Amino acid sequence: MLYINSHFAGGNIELAEITENRCDLRIKPDNQSEFKQWFFFKASNVGGQQISFRILDADKAAYPQGWLDYNVCCSYDGEDWFRIPTQFKDSCLEFSFNFEHDSAYFAYFAPYSYERHLSLVHAAAMHPVVRHEVLGETLDGRELNLLIAGNPNAEKSVWVIARQHPGETMAEWFMEGLIERLLDSDDSVSRQLLQNSCFYLIPNMNPDGSDRGHLRTNAAGINLNREWDKSTMENSPEVYLVRERMKQSGVDLFVDVHGDEGLPYVFIAGSEGIPRFDEAMAAQEAKFLNDFMVASPEMQNEFGYPKDEPGQADLSIASSWVGQEFGCLAVTLEMPFKDNANLPDEERGWSPERSMLLGAAMLQPILQQMKS
Amino acid sequence: MLYINSHFAGGNIELAEITENRCDLRIKPDNQSEFKQWFFFKASNVGGQQISFRILDADKAAYPQGWLDYNVCCSYDGEDWFRIPTQFKDSCLEFSFNFEHDSAYFAYFAPYSYERHLSLVHAAAMHPVVRHEVLGETLDGRELNLLIAGNPNAEKSVWVIARQHPGETMAEWFMEGLIERLLDSDDSVSRQLLQNSCFYLIPNMNPDGSDRGHLRTNAAGINLNREWDKSTMENSPEVYLVRERMKQSGVDLFVDVHGDEGLPYVFIAGSEGIPRFDEAMAAQEAKFLNDFMVASPEMQNEFGYPKDEPGQADLSIASSWVGQEFGCLAVTLEMPFKDNANLPDEERGWSPERSMLLGAAMLQPILQQMKS
Amino acid sequence: MLYINSHFAGGNIELAEITENRCDLRIKPDNQSEFKQWFFFKASNVGGQQISFRILDADKAAYPQGWLDYNVCCSYDGEDWFRIPTQFKDSCLEFSFNFEHDSAYFAYFAPYSYERHLSLVHAAAMHPVVRHEVLGETLDGRELNLLIAGNPNAEKSVWVIARQHPGETMAEWFMEGLIERLLDSDDSVSRQLLQNSCFYLIPNMNPDGSDRGHLRTNAAGINLNREWDKSTMENSPEVYLVRERMKQSGVDLFVDVHGDEGLPYVFIAGSEGIPRFDEAMAAQEAKFLNDFMVASPEMQNEFGYPKDEPGQADLSIASSWVGQEFGCLAVTLEMPFKDNANLPDEERGWSPERSMLLGAAMLQPILQQMKS
Amino acid sequence: MLYINSHFAGGNIELAEITENRCDLRIKPDNQSEFKQWFFFKASNVGGQQISFRILDADKAAYPQGWLDYNVCCSYDGEDWFRIPTQFKDSCLEFSFNFEHDSAYFAYFAPYSYERHLSLVHAAAMHPVVRHEVLGETLDGRELNLLIAGNPNAEKSVWVIARQHPGETMAEWFMEGLIERLLDSDDSVSRQLLQNSCFYLIPNMNPDGSDRGHLRTNAAGINLNREWDKSTMENSPEVYLVRERMKQSGVDLFVDVHGDEGLPYVFIAGSEGIPRFDEAMAAQEAKFLNDFMVASPEMQNEFGYPKDEPGQADLSIASSWVGQEFGCLAVTLEMPFKDNANLPDEERGWSPERSMLLGAAMLQPILQQMKS
Repeated sequence: MLYINSHFAGGNIELAEITENRCDLRIKPDNQSEFKQWFFFKASNVGGQQISFRILDADKAAYPQGWLDYNVCCSYDGEDWFRIPTQFKDSCLEFSFNFEHDSAYFAYFAPYSYERHLSLVHAAAMHPVVRHEVLGETLDGRELNLLIAGNPNAEKSVWVIARQHPGETMAEWFMEGLIERLLDSDDSVSRQLLQNSCFYLIPNMNPDGSDRGHLRTNAAGINLNREWDKSTMENSPEVYLVRERMKQSGVDLFVDVHGDEGLPYVFIAGSEGIPRFDEAMAAQEAKFLNDFMVASPEMQNEFGYPKDEPGQADLSIASSWVGQEFGCLAVTLEMPFKDNANLPDEERGWSPERSMLLGAAMLQPILQQMKS
Repeated sequence: MLYINSHFAGGNIELAEITENRCDLRIKPDNQSEFKQWFFFKASNVGGQQISFRILDADKAAYPQGWLDYNVCCSYDGEDWFRIPTQFKDSCLEFSFNFEHDSAYFAYFAPYSYERHLSLVHAAAMHPVVRHEVLGETLDGRELNLLIAGNPNAEKSVWVIARQHPGETMAEWFMEGLIERLLDSDDSVSRQLLQNSCFYLIPNMNPDGSDRGHLRTNAAGINLNREWDKSTMENSPEVYLVRERMKQSGVDLFVDVHGDEGLPYVFIAGSEGIPRFDEAMAAQEAKFLNDFMVASPEMQNEFGYPKDEPGQADLSIASSWVGQEFGCLAVTLEMPFKDNANLPDEERGWSPERSMLLGAAMLQPILQQMKS
Repeated sequence: MLYINSHFAGGNIELAEITENRCDLRIKPDNQSEFKQWFFFKASNVGGQQISFRILDADKAAYPQGWLDYNVCCSYDGEDWFRIPTQFKDSCLEFSFNFEHDSAYFAYFAPYSYERHLSLVHAAAMHPVVRHEVLGETLDGRELNLLIAGNPNAEKSVWVIARQHPGETMAEWFMEGLIERLLDSDDSVSRQLLQNSCFYLIPNMNPDGSDRGHLRTNAAGINLNREWDKSTMENSPEVYLVRERMKQSGVDLFVDVHGDEGLPYVFIAGSEGIPRFDEAMAAQEAKFLNDFMVASPEMQNEFGYPKDEPGQADLSIASSWVGQEFGCLAVTLEMPFKDNANLPDEERGWSPERSMLLGAAMLQPILQQMKS
Repeated sequence: MLYINSHFAGGNIELAEITENRCDLRIKPDNQSEFKQWFFFKASNVGGQQISFRILDADKAAYPQGWLDYNVCCSYDGEDWFRIPTQFKDSCLEFSFNFEHDSAYFAYFAPYSYERHLSLVHAAAMHPVVRHEVLGETLDGRELNLLIAGNPNAEKSVWVIARQHPGETMAEWFMEGLIERLLDSDDSVSRQLLQNSCFYLIPNMNPDGSDRGHLRTNAAGINLNREWDKSTMENSPEVYLVRERMKQSGVDLFVDVHGDEGLPYVFIAGSEGIPRFDEAMAAQEAKFLNDFMVASPEMQNEFGYPKDEPGQADLSIASSWVGQEFGCLAVTLEMPFKDNANLPDEERGWSPERSMLLGAAMLQPILQQMKS
């Protein structure tokens, strides 16, 4: 008989009811928070059967419009993920699956576990140009890992952070692709970057939320991307520790990597609303976006968030705070949970592989920034 | 400054004190139990430094003699494990390490995480001859996974279970090697076995203890290998569920895979002490051991546990209970934490690789049993 | 339009005629010889078409009965080989193929090129326990490569040679599997062997014939396995050089690896007919065969060549000459071109993978010989 | 004793004399030609020894200045290539090597064999968007392979050919990198290219010369890159067949990939000297170069060949003939045999890996051309 389990890294589901070949489920909200949208569970003991799943109260999710035109991610082995047709109706997210094997995983997006995070960090840490720093501890007691690649005495410091919102796993896939390319000693883009600049990389800003199966907050239910102007060790050590380290290194370019529930596009949000925004910053940002579009056709400049009015930026947001504090190019990069409507892939939608390639491609616009 | 963390799957350590380049630690006992010997932690932020570690109160471990001639396992990346010279003196386990990179893992033996367990199960579950059953749930809420390979209607049922004692991680490495060979469709030993018998494999009998970093017990502090004659769903669902499933399938051959803290040898313990032990069973057991020694020179028959006197077996132990219940060959297989003194490997000692090869080799004596 | 090419390593075919979707071909005999049966060619420019192939004059092949119950080997990429249904009638070997891609390879058996041979030799030569000797040059100017693994001062010398008959490519796949296992430093069988004996391995006795696409002879049309009592540098430097090297090292166990066109079984032919054959040798041989059958169910003792009458051995054959010269266990090992009828694999028949596993398995009976 | 062999794919050397630890060699000129500079040989039976090599008459090579600041390529296994310090003096190319293993390969540049060529072609040919055509046969009887990727009905045809000069093996490594990226279905650059254009790829224009170990000519001693305005099936079927196929498909962008013996830079030579060169073509060419420099810092525009005067182009050269015939952007791309002095790698110099990355990077400027 159908058996549901989510007691593993990043798992999140609650069983409501199983009746024959139908299974009703609910997403658990983040701890001490009402945010919910991330789910990740396994269904077992149903080889050869067709099962209909309903996620109830999907209209109470953090961003219900995210379910429109969204297809659930599925995997038999936890490695290879594909999409299955999904509908959002009557407040439920519905999908049906014909099990060719005895069990399968279902998730909002292909997960990226804390264990994979540690493997990523330690493999990178063995590279000769890399230093690894544990900046400190999260509320649950996990490490906040920083990778430093390049010459720490270089003039330019590039900071890239990812996954403040733990359910946006594509952000850490993006980091894996970026790191892999950056450490490829045959790649001329990477070699130039490592000679003349220093990278500070936080592959996962929120390991507690990631492991707990949260959508948007840390262990204490705090949205880290609203903490940058007021972070404390009590509420958001993740932000506090990074901010302190940034003050040591300085920041010349900052990218904060995210996933967006709604828009089926890759896009960048800039710092138009910060007090010190000026024409030079506008030019930098425009060049970065243009160079990125050349490096990867996934990037575009048509769809995205409305730009902040001058002076109206929320300085609790990472890219705004960093841009204002360091007077540098500081952007938020968003990837879709759904697909890139400009280059749709019916079978897999937006995927780990595409996230990784996008991370690798971003080194090119960064190099152009370093050169100018 | 040196930073210690064990907040990851299977981690176990308690920081006592850090003074300059010295670090004192303690092993935490299993939950609701006094057993302790398994440790697994990471030391960070000390690239280029020499650090001396002491595990205090090591003489209070479950089997203090296990520390004699034992060398700690170390890894930079969590993948490749090597040994470092270790001493047991003044109630402390002492070792010193020169960090070539910024951080390193230390463990009693190369770990095998729940995540790797799930990968093993799901990769196998996709093989055409395999069925995957979740037998039920552990006390913490994890899955108890059974893999069935071969024809379920075959006359002979072979059961192999591993890691009742979660700190004996070599037992699951052994299962990985066994499963990999069993599912190699070019291997003639495996093909004959799958045609004429059916394998029931529990790669991890104790996922809760494994994830909690326990040495010997489940989430409730219960030693599963003393539960077989009295198991209940309240205390030891892991054993209860397997016993029920065995009654359905029957058992014609049973191996329970373990690690031994003390003896630097691979060996087998049989069922000499069970009431129904007779000459036929003795002959089977002797043949199994001889055939195993042919298949792998790691196996030997000189060193091991003293044999039970007739009728003196403890039927709470898996192999005794199964042997008595099903009247079949039922053995406990032990691998060393240290090394095999017959084929010593100074650099790595007993290792995951050798455990895997031993698991693969065991298919040969099993095939000989099936034929006779 | 269909295009046939065999101008690559080991290629052998002659185009007779192409008419619409039918293609008639002929096998070229070995240089200065009438032996022919090996073929290897590529058909291109026919994606989506069904083509009927006929190999004419197949009844004039070296062993026409070899075509009975034989299925042609096919591959799209030259890596992954499968079988296609084949008939032998009216003196033709006939098969038909539906091209899913634009081109495909067809061969008597999965080829093993000189380039792969060199890769095998050089990868092995980098292993710390291996020495590589070029014994000398073939008639065409290629190297005759010897790999020596183990302690050259060990008491026992084990010689394994393969592919005197170049069309029997399974013999070199067998060597690849044997070498891979022998150099696995975690494998206890290999470790014991390398400690107490020294292996002399000739992965390819006939590189000229292999590259020329011969069935059975060297560049001068000489069948090397009829040269051992009369070899000269002019006719058969391959045999001459090995014989000289054997005299230096001595031989305590000898295996000559072959493929057999007719019998659908793996088997061994011994030295019953050599003058010095005695009961001790008979016992050795029987033990070797029994141990091999334990190590691999592919091996059997029911089918094979008739045994030589006492004193009737042909001493021009490698195993007879070596057995007589060195008074040691000396056998010819035969694998099928077709399949092992005891463990049939409809899709792939006998294959490179099974040849490799058989080579790996042979280390076990060799270890038993070394111990006795 | 030291043994020299070059009887393998692409091998080229002649032994002059061996005296103790010194070995004198000569490069053989191309068949029916005086061109010589490519060498590739193996030295064996000298484990643990230091051997001094001299290539005599190096001043008679096709481009003796190529030896200045050049370091010989060396490999133990034929896979991993590194450089060894080399001098050009007294008409000899001199280098010395301390053999850590019993044998090693030496070459002008890391070789790319016909067998690897066939593997490349056939692996690509199995990709759903690829068609494989054998255009015809070379003088020696090898295949001239064309890979077509994308929609054959697309408006734009992109032709990339490589290795007209067989000794310029980096050209085929470049193609391998280009093809690998082009067929990566997750890569957005490739996906856009394959949707809107069709690629015609000749990974090796000169398989005969490649296999014979030639520097610059085909089997008949013809320099293919001086044949484009006069090619015949008798002299240069390689060029003839490609030219005919180009007339069918049309050409909208053409790149001919080469290696340059002298300049330590990557560069492009355009079509300035062809009669129909105009401002539009100049702009296209400039854009291509600029976009390429953005995609890969290996590319530069400072060093290169002098530009042809208007109307002075040699139309026997591929890029000139194609540019003139089809009125499209047509360039010759050159990689160094030595290193890129802008991004020097002391250990490996210019390498297969860098050639592959450059090939992959070129898809970006091609995409920009397709868009404009």
